[in-house]
Amino acid sequence: MLDIQRKDTIIAIATAAGAGAIAVIRLSGKDSISLVDAAFISGAKSAKSLKESKSHRLHFGTIQDDEAILDEVLVSVFKNPHSFTGEDVIEISCHGSVYIQQKMLEYFLFKGARLAQPGEFTLRAFLNGKLDLSQAEAVADIIAADSASSHRLAMNQLRGGFSNEIALLREQLIHFASLIELELDFAEEDVEFASRADLMKTVEKLRSVIQGLVDSFEVGNVLKNGIPVVIAGEPNVGKSTLLNALLNEDRAIVSEIAGTTRDTIEEEIVLGGVKFRFIDTAGIRDTTDTIEKIGVEKTYEKMRQSPVVIYLFDVNNTTSSALENQLEELKRELSPGFRIIPVGNKIDGKNLEELEKEFKDTPSILFISAKQRINLFAISEILSKDVKSGLLEGKDTVVTNVRHADALRKTAEALGRVHTGLSSNVTNDFIAGDLRHALHYLGEITGQISSDDLLANIFSKFCIGK
Amino acid sequence: MLDIQRKDTIIAIATAAGAGAIAVIRLSGKDSISLVDAAFISGAKSAKSLKESKSHRLHFGTIQDDEAILDEVLVSVFKNPHSFTGEDVIEISCHGSVYIQQKMLEYFLFKGARLAQPGEFTLRAFLNGKLDLSQAEAVADIIAADSASSHRLAMNQLRGGFSNEIALLREQLIHFASLIELELDFAEEDVEFASRADLMKTVEKLRSVIQGLVDSFEVGNVLKNGIPVVIAGEPNVGKSTLLNALLNEDRAIVSEIAGTTRDTIEEEIVLGGVKFRFIDTAGIRDTTDTIEKIGVEKTYEKMRQSPVVIYLFDVNNTTSSALENQLEELKRELSPGFRIIPVGNKIDGKNLEELEKEFKDTPSILFISAKQRINLFAISEILSKDVKSGLLEGKDTVVTNVRHADALRKTAEALGRVHTGLSSNVTNDFIAGDLRHALHYLGEITGQISSDDLLANIFSKFCIGK
Repeated sequence: MLDIQRKDTIIAIATAAGAGAIAVIRLSGKDSISLVDAAFISGAKSAKSLKESKSHRLHFGTIQDDEAILDEVLVSVFKNPHSFTGEDVIEISCHGSVYIQQKMLEYFLFKGARLAQPGEFTLRAFLNGKLDLSQAEAVADIIAADSASSHRLAMNQLRGGFSNEIALLREQLIHFASLIELELDFAEEDVEFASRADLMKTVEKLRSVIQGLVDSFEVGNVLKNGIPVVIAGEPNVGKSTLLNALLNEDRAIVSEIAGTTRDTIEEEIVLGGVKFRFIDTAGIRDTTDTIEKIGVEKTYEKMRQSPVVIYLFDVNNTTSSALENQLEELKRELSPGFRIIPVGNKIDGKNLEELEKEFKDTPSILFISAKQRINLFAISEILSKDVKSGLLEGKDTVVTNVRHADALRKTAEALGRVHTGLSSNVTNDFIAGDLRHALHYLGEITGQISSDDLLANIFSKFCIGK
Repeated sequence: MLDIQRKDTIIAIATAAGAGAIAVIRLSGKDSISLVDAAFISGAKSAKSLKESKSHRLHFGTIQDDEAILDEVLVSVFKNPHSFTGEDVIEISCHGSVYIQQKMLEYFLFKGARLAQPGEFTLRAFLNGKLDLSQAEAVADIIAADSASSHRLAMNQLRGGFSNEIALLREQLIHFASLIELELDFAEEDVEFASRADLMKTVEKLRSVIQGLVDSFEVGNVLKNGIPVVIAGEPNVGKSTLLNALLNEDRAIVSEIAGTTRDTIEEEIVLGGVKFRFIDTAGIRDTTDTIEKIGVEKTYEKMRQSPVVIYLFDVNNTTSSALENQLEELKRELSPGFRIIPVGNKIDGKNLEELEKEFKDTPSILFISAKQRINLFAISEILSKDVKSGLLEGKDTVVTNVRHADALRKTAEALGRVHTGLSSNVTNDFIAGDLRHALHYLGEITGQISSDDLLANIFSKFCIGK
């Protein structure tokens, strides 16, 4: 089915929906050049047809439908295989009115092009060997990325960083598997091409690398969706004021693009290129009231899900020993890995040196004024640098895609069975079978193994025009 | 001031706001090529710099900021003067995430580009002589056009149709003026280079052409903003059902572009490429109730503002003579130029031949069923063809821009004073002065006469990136 689909010429509006200065309409497939040639009248005097144009050339002119001039346009010509999809590709850059976009689309649909399915351009790029599957998926991630770290992860994947790692693992596994299969061929002679001890070592090494990748998924997911941060503290220490102040810092950056409409979840903030999800909590204090206790317990629950807690206190009515007690209590509630950032609020008019002397028992307190926006950058810096690098420590490659994590998990399971098999001396048939499974799942990640269903599932999540 | 502005390099996102498959970032100015060259790493093996690239070439590669790869991009190179603005222009086609668009913008702003003002690319095109002012204004109209007729008017203006007409008029006027100025130079010798009778004829001819253009503005404005159509009729004949049915016809077309968000005024409907503004009215019937009379009077008032009225009646409870009476009454209320389209509704299950026989006294009734959507296309056809061509009859050039209409009106006034001057034998000084005024206003339309204020006013209405 996928093969039949590739024979027709697809079209879609590739730029964001709505009116802009310009819009780009993209065609891919064997008729894309002739379809546009029939409607394009070059503005150049000694113009050749687009068919005669070399690849990677821009042509100014007009597109005419059967009645009148639709628009003045720039036409980009990409000749197979030197295009994104690997097919002949035409990009028409026209005036960005919704009306013109619609008319262009209608005209070429009428002339025989087909409206592209979501992700179909990238699907064709994959089918024509321009991208592997993991790189193709990165395209969707790149378009969805909204912070420097999620962008970098996706870009790394598009550039093949992740694919290379998988390819290397798969090569080692194939080498291993081929030795086993060889032994199967000579089963009656009871030869052993590979020392079982060496094989065991290789499998263990592979398992540990793959487990590392599986584990990195959690971190990758956190970076992609935002690192949860809890702002905790007693009532009225300024938690909401701090959240709003941090939100404003963020807004100031975002609003530089006119018309950007982000359906913001109020608490999502990008600081220093890393996305954080700030979680507002009820104030923490000792209480005997049952209902209130439930609220406090919920706060602790949320804190346990986030790797970092900002503990806010009011420098005007908190003594050093009270702070120490509060932090001690907090540490008891949280597991040891969690990071607590103590932040003293409402320092306006105070002497910073005196404050530091007063709270000298608690190391690395940040002193701020959320209301006066004093020293807020220190919070943003600690979060974006320390917290992020703590998360990423020792992780060269980070898996962000749930499908990849799943395939890696299944690979690890199959390798686990190989390991058990080797330890318990089962016959080579079983070991070879489990190895084939492991290879299959690894191959699924980069698309060396793929089914129509899998592809349909992956590309249906794309936007149209990509 | 405008001249200083032209020395720097401007940048803007040229595609619609928000995420799409791709986005286009446009730079124009003398540093645009070197700015991008510094960040661009070509994907080709034997790549030259963009500076060495020929015009109208596309280059695949990556854009790197000072830290990491921002994106894989296609870069279009246009070398001065062969570009939209007439300057060196670079267009970067990148992945359409809001994040990447923002980062690209930030990066080049940091490196010394300046964020373009609304319309600044088109302003530069005008200042560099690539477009005249009326053509530049057409660019904004094209982007805003939302129907075939408003699109065609704008496209005609962009292609210079309107400018040519104005240029021709101005040439005739200049010829006339130069003869008068010549007579001024030889004032003491009392020569007459141009026969006053001939001059009078020329002025009269010019006035009539210009008045025609001024008059066409009303039509142009109507086509641009939608032709008002009133659906009138007694209560419960199905007026709202018809409106909804027509709206649905329209929606079906519009929704072919996924994600198109049009802030629709409910009653704006594009039928056969022409925009109509349907006005819902209170039912008309004889009444003695004072309050109700006010409602009916308002309906008549609205009808008088629209060139066409759809008069809807229920074929099941309207006799031919009753219909004739109702139409007679309607005609008395409206001025003679108005068109009434009688439409018989609720024909479901009726025999069409019998209906036509029954209402044979009233010519050209359309029989429909709004509920069953029977024969709706007949309404749409009459409106889009007959009504539109009636409006445009005898008008080759249509003025759509309020600034142009204003300048033309002032030209006509100045020419009127010339006419009066010639009739009453005032001295040549006065006639020459009025002619200069007329020339000034005509020149303002195409920008041969322009001031910074005028330009700022025109281009501030553009979107950024154009």
